[in-house]
Amino acid sequence: MKNIKNYIIKKAEKSKNASKKLALISTDGKNRALSRIAGLLDRNSNIIISENIKDIKAAEKNKVSSALIDRLRLDEKRIHLMADGLRQIVELPDPVGEICEKTVRPNGLIIEKTRVPIGVIGIIYESRPNVTVDSVGLCLKSGNCTVLRGGSEAINSNRILVDIISQGTYSSGIPNGCVEFIDNTDRSIISEMIRLPQYIDCIIPRGGEGLIDYIKKNSYIPVIAHGKGVCHTYIDKDASFRKAIEISFNAKVQRPGVCNAMETLLVHKDIAKVYLPIMIEKFKDAKVEIRGDRLTKKIVNKIKPAKESDWYEEYLDLILSVKVVSSIEDAIFHIEKYGSHHSDAIVTENKKTAERFLKEVDSASVYWNASTRFTDGSEFGMGAEIGISTQKVHARGPMGLKDLTSYKYIVRGNGQIRK
Amino acid sequence: MKNIKNYIIKKAEKSKNASKKLALISTDGKNRALSRIAGLLDRNSNIIISENIKDIKAAEKNKVSSALIDRLRLDEKRIHLMADGLRQIVELPDPVGEICEKTVRPNGLIIEKTRVPIGVIGIIYESRPNVTVDSVGLCLKSGNCTVLRGGSEAINSNRILVDIISQGTYSSGIPNGCVEFIDNTDRSIISEMIRLPQYIDCIIPRGGEGLIDYIKKNSYIPVIAHGKGVCHTYIDKDASFRKAIEISFNAKVQRPGVCNAMETLLVHKDIAKVYLPIMIEKFKDAKVEIRGDRLTKKIVNKIKPAKESDWYEEYLDLILSVKVVSSIEDAIFHIEKYGSHHSDAIVTENKKTAERFLKEVDSASVYWNASTRFTDGSEFGMGAEIGISTQKVHARGPMGLKDLTSYKYIVRGNGQIRK
Repeated sequence: MKNIKNYIIKKAEKSKNASKKLALISTDGKNRALSRIAGLLDRNSNIIISENIKDIKAAEKNKVSSALIDRLRLDEKRIHLMADGLRQIVELPDPVGEICEKTVRPNGLIIEKTRVPIGVIGIIYESRPNVTVDSVGLCLKSGNCTVLRGGSEAINSNRILVDIISQGTYSSGIPNGCVEFIDNTDRSIISEMIRLPQYIDCIIPRGGEGLIDYIKKNSYIPVIAHGKGVCHTYIDKDASFRKAIEISFNAKVQRPGVCNAMETLLVHKDIAKVYLPIMIEKFKDAKVEIRGDRLTKKIVNKIKPAKESDWYEEYLDLILSVKVVSSIEDAIFHIEKYGSHHSDAIVTENKKTAERFLKEVDSASVYWNASTRFTDGSEFGMGAEIGISTQKVHARGPMGLKDLTSYKYIVRGNGQIRK
Repeated sequence: MKNIKNYIIKKAEKSKNASKKLALISTDGKNRALSRIAGLLDRNSNIIISENIKDIKAAEKNKVSSALIDRLRLDEKRIHLMADGLRQIVELPDPVGEICEKTVRPNGLIIEKTRVPIGVIGIIYESRPNVTVDSVGLCLKSGNCTVLRGGSEAINSNRILVDIISQGTYSSGIPNGCVEFIDNTDRSIISEMIRLPQYIDCIIPRGGEGLIDYIKKNSYIPVIAHGKGVCHTYIDKDASFRKAIEISFNAKVQRPGVCNAMETLLVHKDIAKVYLPIMIEKFKDAKVEIRGDRLTKKIVNKIKPAKESDWYEEYLDLILSVKVVSSIEDAIFHIEKYGSHHSDAIVTENKKTAERFLKEVDSASVYWNASTRFTDGSEFGMGAEIGISTQKVHARGPMGLKDLTSYKYIVRGNGQIRK
């Protein structure tokens, strides 16, 4: 236990020291390193795959789910996608040094609120090895050092990826220590890592609810976390029929396994009798299992009943709960009570109703006549994202490069003293 | 214990429900309430003072320090200052509803990143009853509900202040529950309060290091905290002699008991022999106790030696540690090692040296040729402040109304679905 503590302290301290140097590296320097890493990933895909196979074999031996094995797997295509992700980050503007606000005070002091890196970011993640490359890319571009703690299932893949990243940073003059990899799968390392506020400035957990909850409850370091996405689409009585069908279908079916997919469909009673039979037929054709409330079941036959627990559920699958509501108040009440404040949409042609929904629904992203599936850094125009925050402090919604920065006040004077 | 838990849950839940209504109240409505509260404070100063005297008497009976009794005391003047503070908040622009960024995407989606209140803010503070009024003022203006937990020493004062606040909010149509006061001095209530992330969105502790540290380590809710201020002034070899004297003196002596006062003076060796004898004489005249390093003691006789622990110390008193350094690198190294990243200044006429200092010193506020005493919401032009953050996540430096907000993405479309 003591050894583990010393091990992680040494890593974190090295990272902290490197962060002071990395903060001063030019945009060109950071971009050069990112491009090099991208090239190295492409050229070393064979060795990455051979290391990845070790993880896959171990996972198969441990009889883990096929979904987990899919998340774990790296093939030629996925490796090139990671490399391309880095090249896209190169193209994004560097947030560091941006002057967010400038004030000249009556006493002549010139105050510039200037973007700076956060410093050291601890990334704690699970089985997906691409998180290693994506996180390093975004953190490096925003001038932050990373301490990486990936899942034990991906240890061989992560080790080779960090090795390649280090070749790229080293040969580009990026300070040693800017990417520190916890090459130790002991779970107790997480509880030590999240209690080093003197070295690590921020923890970003990426993974399941259990991991995130544990970290939020035990960290001494500020945490920026994404939560689950229990997303709603509300079909108002004044909805365009075509938009209602297309948007609901897209929100549920286009990619059901992600956090911005719809989990609950709310339908105004005045439109339910016409809309629901057609919509549910379309969903059934797409193999979506429907779980309806009492009124939904009255309108459409042969569907499962929704239990109280269904309204809280993030299915991440081709399952949808459906409820008929009698007003926009009911819809908002339901979303506020059961939702996760991630992404919620209204479909209506009535501007007044829409604006009320947009104002009163307290979610990170609220939509009028569009699919919740758009909640995504790239769709929002901020480039790659490090996650989607459902908390309200620091960052909310898709988190891009700017959300990986802090700021400082730079004050220039000519001898001012306080009276 | 169970009763305490139920008590705080009920308060927090009430506040959460009120927060949804408060978020929709107009700027005028909020300003009207703030003005009413200000008027009520002025008109009820007698009853406030008579309740405050109960706290003072209890404190005297418990033989607490005179400094604490001073922080506790409310007199006519202090009550009017609190009321005026609220009137100043009325004059500040309402941050809620501000569109921070607007993007039109190629697919026609219009995305507005819009400022919204955080929701429910838990304020945990110690003996100063004015924190009750200041916090409610800033939180109410930024559309946030508050759950207040003040120190037991100030219970009678806080109770009457919240009573007056509630009269003001009630008669202005502000939703019931927008200011919830924990009328219970059991310390265990704090540990329950910081574990209710389903109701409270953010915790702001205001008080001593022990309280803040406890909260940071045990909260399940994001914390925005101020840290201590170990502030430095570095006198470079190219400093203007007059500015060096005036700025150092102001930073230490003008108000030594606050977090932005200087605690350590660093002096370049090339200027130390001329500057230090005069400066230290001036400090001694102002009753400042000097603790010098070896080189300082060589230059000036009869001063106490500084111990290693002095460099970490936030004296909040007329005490100053002094060190002679041989370069700007040394100065920056010292500040990064011992400082608290609050406010640090360089005095120099050399622009290149200054810019290096401003860039490399990783503090919330960095100064060139000005006193660290300017780190203050009002001096920075943001109006009243709720504290000064030394963390890098969410807010850094003086925290004003904007720092009490989050944002949401409001997305307007005309039927867009994701391909």
